Amino acid sequence: MQELIKSLKVDANGLIPAIAQDATTGEVLMVAWMNAESLARTLETGEAVYWSRSRNKLWRKGEESGNVQKVKEIRADCDKDVLLLKVAQVGGAACHTGYRSCFSWVLKDGAWVEDGVKVFDPKDKYRK
Amino acid sequence: MQELIKSLKVDANGLIPAIAQDATTGEVLMVAWMNAESLARTLETGEAVYWSRSRNKLWRKGEESGNVQKVKEIRADCDKDVLLLKVAQVGGAACHTGYRSCFSWVLKDGAWVEDGVKVFDPKDKYRK
Repeated sequence: MQELIKSLKVDANGLIPAIAQDATTGEVLMVAWMNAESLARTLETGEAVYWSRSRNKLWRKGEESGNVQKVKEIRADCDKDVLLLKVAQVGGAACHTGYRSCFSWVLKDGAWVEDGVKVFDPKDKYRK
Repeated sequence: MQELIKSLKVDANGLIPAIAQDATTGEVLMVAWMNAESLARTLETGEAVYWSRSRNKLWRKGEESGNVQKVKEIRADCDKDVLLLKVAQVGGAACHTGYRSCFSWVLKDGAWVEDGVKVFDPKDKYRK
């Protein structure tokens, strides 16, 4: 594991961005961050574990919503400074807004317009 | 344009990561960085213009290789801190290594194994 993380270019905080992509449809679902520990936990469990920069702790994706990500494949880019996780998105939605993908805003005439598939209502999913 | 860049969360250097995805196949091609100027130039020209952190200047993707990216759509995520460009990749390859995608390394048994479609030989493409 130490060898693996050493093979990657992490930032000053030991973090590397990770793109989650639907393994079946190719849809880009979200971007989060990983450190050595989250990568190790992801490999151990087969489910995506990220590092939450806002909460400063490990974040098993879906730990609250149930929308975990089963990791099918992990890729790295030529510079080894970005990871790409191909995942099966349990529950059909990656985004806390209830959209299937976090990338549910499209640029139209200079403004961001909501444009995504809504899978759940956040009010039904998260505790206060 | 000022309004548009203000709607995004850029880092301390005014940069935001941008994922380039093949608009037709859904393949994730690369990740680069944009600032206000590169985003403006991208919108003006319809071709992806990034900010090169290593060279500290605007980088019209494909300016040397000819492998420009025609931008079909620009998306942002829920936090407005990552962009997703859906592109038509001229020349068929986004990566300077000659691979179609920069994400041509797959994790197998704890090591990165080359696994991609080689489109060109870098020796034939770039000047010394």
